[in-house]
Amino acid sequence: MTAALSTALSRTESLSLLSLTAACVAVLANTFQGDGEPLIASLALSGVAFSATFAMIRWLGPTFIKSGLKGVDMSKHHKKELPECMGAICAIVYLLVVIVFIPFPFYKDIVAATSGGGNRDVVLQTEHVQQGRFLHRFPHSKLASYLSAIISLQSISLLGIGDDLFDIRWRHKFFIPAFASIPLLAIYFVDFGVTSIVIPIPLQPYLGELFNLGALYYVYMASVAIFSPNSINILAGINGIEVTQSIVIALLLVLNDCLYLLTPYPHPATDSHLFSLYFLLPFLGVSFALLWYNWYPARVFVGDTYCYFAGMVFVVVSILGHFSKTLVLLLIPQIFNFLYSIPQLAGIVPCPRHRLPRFNARTGLLEPSVTPWTAERQPKPPVAWALKLLDRLRLLRVTLDERGNFVETSNFTILNLWLVWRGPLREDRLAVELTAMQTVVGLFGLFVRHRLALLIFKEDNWGISS
Amino acid sequence: MTAALSTALSRTESLSLLSLTAACVAVLANTFQGDGEPLIASLALSGVAFSATFAMIRWLGPTFIKSGLKGVDMSKHHKKELPECMGAICAIVYLLVVIVFIPFPFYKDIVAATSGGGNRDVVLQTEHVQQGRFLHRFPHSKLASYLSAIISLQSISLLGIGDDLFDIRWRHKFFIPAFASIPLLAIYFVDFGVTSIVIPIPLQPYLGELFNLGALYYVYMASVAIFSPNSINILAGINGIEVTQSIVIALLLVLNDCLYLLTPYPHPATDSHLFSLYFLLPFLGVSFALLWYNWYPARVFVGDTYCYFAGMVFVVVSILGHFSKTLVLLLIPQIFNFLYSIPQLAGIVPCPRHRLPRFNARTGLLEPSVTPWTAERQPKPPVAWALKLLDRLRLLRVTLDERGNFVETSNFTILNLWLVWRGPLREDRLAVELTAMQTVVGLFGLFVRHRLALLIFKEDNWGISS
Repeated sequence: MTAALSTALSRTESLSLLSLTAACVAVLANTFQGDGEPLIASLALSGVAFSATFAMIRWLGPTFIKSGLKGVDMSKHHKKELPECMGAICAIVYLLVVIVFIPFPFYKDIVAATSGGGNRDVVLQTEHVQQGRFLHRFPHSKLASYLSAIISLQSISLLGIGDDLFDIRWRHKFFIPAFASIPLLAIYFVDFGVTSIVIPIPLQPYLGELFNLGALYYVYMASVAIFSPNSINILAGINGIEVTQSIVIALLLVLNDCLYLLTPYPHPATDSHLFSLYFLLPFLGVSFALLWYNWYPARVFVGDTYCYFAGMVFVVVSILGHFSKTLVLLLIPQIFNFLYSIPQLAGIVPCPRHRLPRFNARTGLLEPSVTPWTAERQPKPPVAWALKLLDRLRLLRVTLDERGNFVETSNFTILNLWLVWRGPLREDRLAVELTAMQTVVGLFGLFVRHRLALLIFKEDNWGISS
Repeated sequence: MTAALSTALSRTESLSLLSLTAACVAVLANTFQGDGEPLIASLALSGVAFSATFAMIRWLGPTFIKSGLKGVDMSKHHKKELPECMGAICAIVYLLVVIVFIPFPFYKDIVAATSGGGNRDVVLQTEHVQQGRFLHRFPHSKLASYLSAIISLQSISLLGIGDDLFDIRWRHKFFIPAFASIPLLAIYFVDFGVTSIVIPIPLQPYLGELFNLGALYYVYMASVAIFSPNSINILAGINGIEVTQSIVIALLLVLNDCLYLLTPYPHPATDSHLFSLYFLLPFLGVSFALLWYNWYPARVFVGDTYCYFAGMVFVVVSILGHFSKTLVLLLIPQIFNFLYSIPQLAGIVPCPRHRLPRFNARTGLLEPSVTPWTAERQPKPPVAWALKLLDRLRLLRVTLDERGNFVETSNFTILNLWLVWRGPLREDRLAVELTAMQTVVGLFGLFVRHRLALLIFKEDNWGISS
């Protein structure tokens, strides 16, 4: 049953959101007066972001429909038009929040650097106090990396909205994240330029302790930047899945950050991981609000904007925080989905326009969607052999007729594969199971990163290998 | 005659654009290999921006119409649908160009700071050369201000596109530039914090040489940031006028920058004015391409996005370059238009939804549009007296019936006032005359700034008062 989306908030909703916002603003004001603890401020702003997104999706939904930003949910009995591209609201609220947050992480530096009555925490000698700022003390490099992250996220939002508006062709779409990563890479080039990687111990005799990748490092960063948003965008098609996978990845990144912040000794990467939290917490705020509406039965769609945006949030925190390899570990289901899709993306197997699971109107459950093979178009012998092998390995469902001709094969996406294994399933059940899988795989990835990495690297945040 | 907008570029157009782009890219490559002269690189990128905007407006026009971004030109015989919101294309091309430009102004610093074979210009002692960057030499503060400008411009683009899509109400619209100026002000707060102004000589005995405005300085900056984009947005309504006024203001700001760069001695504000040129030159590039299509008879509309965006470009260069008072001098026609509009904006005189000049289909000329007064609704005596006075001063056209009752008054915009003075005029003639007026007033403003300022301030770029 698809509930109609009323424009007004109910009394309970209004009161809850107002209380949450008031509490958050109070915490924020307190933070600004006190020692300016930025992590608390970031949490409070994330609460504000949740409330703002929750309310604005409700208020603006009908406006989006009126402007043509709408879509039909194919996996329901009653097909009605829902507002599309709600990720744009998330992105704009998010951006406003991280922009307003700018002064907080620099509060202590500002207090230390300004003349006047502000320097409560840090005592400066008088000759250092001057009109304006004492520029050399101020962590401009931190500020620049914060700003470059904002620019990349704004770029991806602009381009994502363009995509949702104009339905850009698939082969052009693919490069949207590439454009959005230009600011990140340009500022990395200007401001940091560290292009060395730590070499695993077994290879150190040959390559040395550090290896300078040079220009290749930029190619690597650009690849991560292109892959992450696109991979989230292709693991899509059922209610809630875009948002839940993003929330799981964000939560695992938060967990990873906490592992660095809660070490027994102050870790040298503390700043990078605080930076990461400042960007992830508001993202979680807007995402939970969006999930409220996008969960089964969905009352709004998220749009490509959200997928690109979520992917780019992960990219900026991991590149600027120098933990992009960890991000790759958390994207394993997405990587699998991409690799698994290659036969269809490369045209070896025919690829229909939409590959989302098929809704069976009689049972109300989802089944794997299929690509039909006609008698005229049959797979070539090696492809046929490979398809049959995949079927034997339960990595595909192949239907043959009595003469051994291919009738249909399930589409090559992780959603369809899951339904081959466990289907038919109701839409929300499928989303829950995939989200659980993403969580388990991600936790295992973090375990590998923090426990097994010591086998091949000299040191980690939790210890030094013997 | 409204020419149909074909999607394809003609052969001549393609060849011209390709030649221009090739020449610019060659210059750019040369710049990067040579001494990295950023001003030349900026000029070359502005040429690329022109070509890209020119081609993309042509290619994407029909896509915009299909997505509902379209409008009808009311001041033509043949009313056909034209693509609206083409300013979004300008904004996106512009942003991409200024982002790609980031490394150029910092080229010398990068060369000086990187280890490896790059340090041709600056010799560094070996102990300063290290893995990564020698952070203290690098002008991060310059980088941060450059980035904050980009963030503000991206914010105004996002919000402007939202406005064009959803037709936001006038009272909400007004605050769009306020939101977009938050990053500018936040970064100003974090990174510069200079809130003092120079006091004119006659007042110095009372207030001192410098006066610290403190928080009021932020209110002042926010006011400029709100006023400039909105003032350009309300001086609109005939083909080309939004773009030509923006081009004139940009050119005058460029002239002002040149006055600082060509001083007999190196001026302390050289960097601020180079910064300003880096933002203004690509703006001129995209604006000339837009003007090509938007000039009478218009084949595209610019949308609110362009007006906000143009106004914000002026705001960022003048606030970060510390010459916002000069900007105010260049906005005199816009300030006049705003003040003159107040009777209608404040509801003293009825305000119709649209106040653009009236197209007389018989003559093909524009005439002042009017607000009708009914016998029931007549102005109150003091208002009536003021309206008659304005009429006497030729600042309004008032039509009375034989009994002295108000029949109609011309609408309170500078376009209608100009038509009261010199109308009826053809649309392009009106645009030319207003642009000429903007140029003359702006040149006079710069003259005041650079010649007469010495009477009340101690020093200027061209001399020191005796």
